[in-house]
Amino acid sequence: MTALTHLNAAGEASMVDVSAKAVTVREAWAEGFVRMSAYTLRLIADGGHKKGDVLSVARIAGIQAAKRTADLIPLCHPLMLSKIQVDFTLDDARSGVSIRALCKLSGQTGVEMEALTAVSVAALTLFDMCKAVDPGMVIEGIRVLEKRGGKTGHWQADV
Amino acid sequence: MTALTHLNAAGEASMVDVSAKAVTVREAWAEGFVRMSAYTLRLIADGGHKKGDVLSVARIAGIQAAKRTADLIPLCHPLMLSKIQVDFTLDDARSGVSIRALCKLSGQTGVEMEALTAVSVAALTLFDMCKAVDPGMVIEGIRVLEKRGGKTGHWQADV
Amino acid sequence: MTALTHLNAAGEASMVDVSAKAVTVREAWAEGFVRMSAYTLRLIADGGHKKGDVLSVARIAGIQAAKRTADLIPLCHPLMLSKIQVDFTLDDARSGVSIRALCKLSGQTGVEMEALTAVSVAALTLFDMCKAVDPGMVIEGIRVLEKRGGKTGHWQADV
Amino acid sequence: MTALTHLNAAGEASMVDVSAKAVTVREAWAEGFVRMSAYTLRLIADGGHKKGDVLSVARIAGIQAAKRTADLIPLCHPLMLSKIQVDFTLDDARSGVSIRALCKLSGQTGVEMEALTAVSVAALTLFDMCKAVDPGMVIEGIRVLEKRGGKTGHWQADV
Amino acid sequence: MTALTHLNAAGEASMVDVSAKAVTVREAWAEGFVRMSAYTLRLIADGGHKKGDVLSVARIAGIQAAKRTADLIPLCHPLMLSKIQVDFTLDDARSGVSIRALCKLSGQTGVEMEALTAVSVAALTLFDMCKAVDPGMVIEGIRVLEKRGGKTGHWQADV
Amino acid sequence: MTALTHLNAAGEASMVDVSAKAVTVREAWAEGFVRMSAYTLRLIADGGHKKGDVLSVARIAGIQAAKRTADLIPLCHPLMLSKIQVDFTLDDARSGVSIRALCKLSGQTGVEMEALTAVSVAALTLFDMCKAVDPGMVIEGIRVLEKRGGKTGHWQADV
Repeated sequence: MTALTHLNAAGEASMVDVSAKAVTVREAWAEGFVRMSAYTLRLIADGGHKKGDVLSVARIAGIQAAKRTADLIPLCHPLMLSKIQVDFTLDDARSGVSIRALCKLSGQTGVEMEALTAVSVAALTLFDMCKAVDPGMVIEGIRVLEKRGGKTGHWQADV
Repeated sequence: MTALTHLNAAGEASMVDVSAKAVTVREAWAEGFVRMSAYTLRLIADGGHKKGDVLSVARIAGIQAAKRTADLIPLCHPLMLSKIQVDFTLDDARSGVSIRALCKLSGQTGVEMEALTAVSVAALTLFDMCKAVDPGMVIEGIRVLEKRGGKTGHWQADV
Repeated sequence: MTALTHLNAAGEASMVDVSAKAVTVREAWAEGFVRMSAYTLRLIADGGHKKGDVLSVARIAGIQAAKRTADLIPLCHPLMLSKIQVDFTLDDARSGVSIRALCKLSGQTGVEMEALTAVSVAALTLFDMCKAVDPGMVIEGIRVLEKRGGKTGHWQADV
Repeated sequence: MTALTHLNAAGEASMVDVSAKAVTVREAWAEGFVRMSAYTLRLIADGGHKKGDVLSVARIAGIQAAKRTADLIPLCHPLMLSKIQVDFTLDDARSGVSIRALCKLSGQTGVEMEALTAVSVAALTLFDMCKAVDPGMVIEGIRVLEKRGGKTGHWQADV
Repeated sequence: MTALTHLNAAGEASMVDVSAKAVTVREAWAEGFVRMSAYTLRLIADGGHKKGDVLSVARIAGIQAAKRTADLIPLCHPLMLSKIQVDFTLDDARSGVSIRALCKLSGQTGVEMEALTAVSVAALTLFDMCKAVDPGMVIEGIRVLEKRGGKTGHWQADV
Repeated sequence: MTALTHLNAAGEASMVDVSAKAVTVREAWAEGFVRMSAYTLRLIADGGHKKGDVLSVARIAGIQAAKRTADLIPLCHPLMLSKIQVDFTLDDARSGVSIRALCKLSGQTGVEMEALTAVSVAALTLFDMCKAVDPGMVIEGIRVLEKRGGKTGHWQADV
């Protein structure tokens, strides 16, 4: 049975040794969704057309969080991301905001966790700014969409 | 139309003034779910029976993250949480790990965001530790379950 | 000669004891200015009319920094700010962006350093976003405008 | 019209991609000034001759802040500085303390923001330690003096 | 058998609920020692007489670390320390530097961990600054000396 | 007389320039010990056999702290550790818990401080979790055991 990579034979946590891994350009896309009432979505959209501030705040929060991934997730390696991007799409059909994040670096480990962290904190920030009018929102579908680089090469989520 | 509380009349972000709000005991429960393959769930369960390390690491990550909520979410107030608890349930039927977090304080603002942050980072940590064997996991259903205290009083999510 | 309050009799740094100070509502306004070319100011203004993103990013950075003041300035006490606000004015006459920040709390020490930190980091963020087109910008005039509350009461800068 | 580098075509913030930039040795000098009363300057000078503690504390604060630049300024890349230096000159003629900082690294982006952040936080720390005797101090003239390395090569501020 | 307070009945970690504890003034003293060669001690002493910089840096590091205790130690509560003090004594007889720290607050939990953290990080900083000349130093005797306030009242270490 | 490397000729602190140092694989082992009553040691051991949570929490705290070394110790360089491991041994003979940490990276400076920081914070975390039953514990013997890589090459502590 394949072992979990962050546990040694005794089942104890440790940060995996990546010293010998090749330095390659690696990138990862992640996504997530904040489901909300049509009313809340309209509030964001109205703000978005005029000032965009709700999405701006969430975008910055996501970018900042990606840089703090190793500080938040105990067994993640510290990384020097060379690119972070967070995009939003207002989705009337699904009644919510779709979030996508891209992280990129030239380094020894993948950046899925950084992209997932950017999406998660952007989602939490949207939640925070809208919770007074819509406490029943749900954050869902946070997952890796695609990653490139490293030994495992290209990986893509099922549609 | 009810305004978003974190934007002023000009649509600009600011941290809401809570100086005049009463100091009351406030608590919030949040939940989330990490959906994974039956195989991955069994790896955690096997570890769990013997050492519990995967869940221990995720629990600590969630507790630590709750304390950093105001550092992660731009318009959250700094708070002094008096209690943080993170619980996991392995769910064979839904094939994944269910996460619940409780945050509590005596203060001037609610602690939903702290509970949601604890759940989110605990979920990301589980993801991190299992991603080598199961990159297709999905984090879903992150929401507030219940909150107490403050002007709005008791609030409970729909079942 | 009046001693510097953060040094003991032997000239050594320590964090001043505020245990016995009264808990009162305290607030402080600070200001600063980023002087830049007319061209750069126009770039911000044009962005500002459409999306406001440069100022949004700087505003969030200033708000976040205010919350980290005690982490940045060694002898500052940790505080729980109840309100943070950062405002910008584009000033064609002086060719630059004027920044004002307000911090507020109910506590035992003043919040001037928090307001000054918000202004400073908002200014640095504007600098960062415009430096590729205008590396010669200058940040100037960072000072306390006014403070209220505490034993010293109301204080206002000279005009 | 030259675009601001941190905004995409839609005016949204993102962290610029530096993956393809060359790794070169880069360094930057920044400066700033804290204007204060002659009396306050003398207090620092007297301390300085005997213990140097006010300047020591400000120096350490500046060095520590340089390392946290990417954490403070949303669109800055995380960097691994190889050298940080913060110098002070007591200036009786201008009645204040002049601050200079040098940052250096071998990497893909410049270090002006790190040097400016070191100067800014050193200035704020001086302010904090002297504000009880001189609340009217002003921080001014924060700017880049010179930078070397990278595609743009040598750049120097006008005198 | 008395249970460890940070583990629930199932042996899982959680942050103890202090909501119902009284707010009292609490303080704690901790100490530690860095044992080094007579030569290294003389280097510090010589610097100390002229500039004091080694001890200044270690003092600031200790003060800053005390404020970050809850960020470093997973089950510590966030606190708002009202006083932090770090003192050093050069001890020729024992050949090393003795460190004492005092932390104080008005709150619901004790501050031993904050005082111990201040001592530990001050000791690590001394180690860092002297390790090139004396890599064999040893940090020892880190313990609580005395604490006051709270339900357990006064406690003092054995001599 | 050999100068302390972190002070310049004027006795002022600065971060040593490592730009010109070779990138080599470097690793360091450090150790420490938490002396406690036999009763407390048995509590940990009993927990350890069933759930291991006390040691799990301390292990995670140590790993996280190693990543924050440059944030805690003013003149340490930021580093990207490629491996962190923290091990515990319950020692009935000496009545306490022995802690060992390994840090590793490919870079320009050694990682002793990171290993010592991991040990120190793991020790503080054990202290925190046991202090209610045993406030008289002592942390001792924190030192570097061995380091490899870099110009100075292999170094080992005396037995």
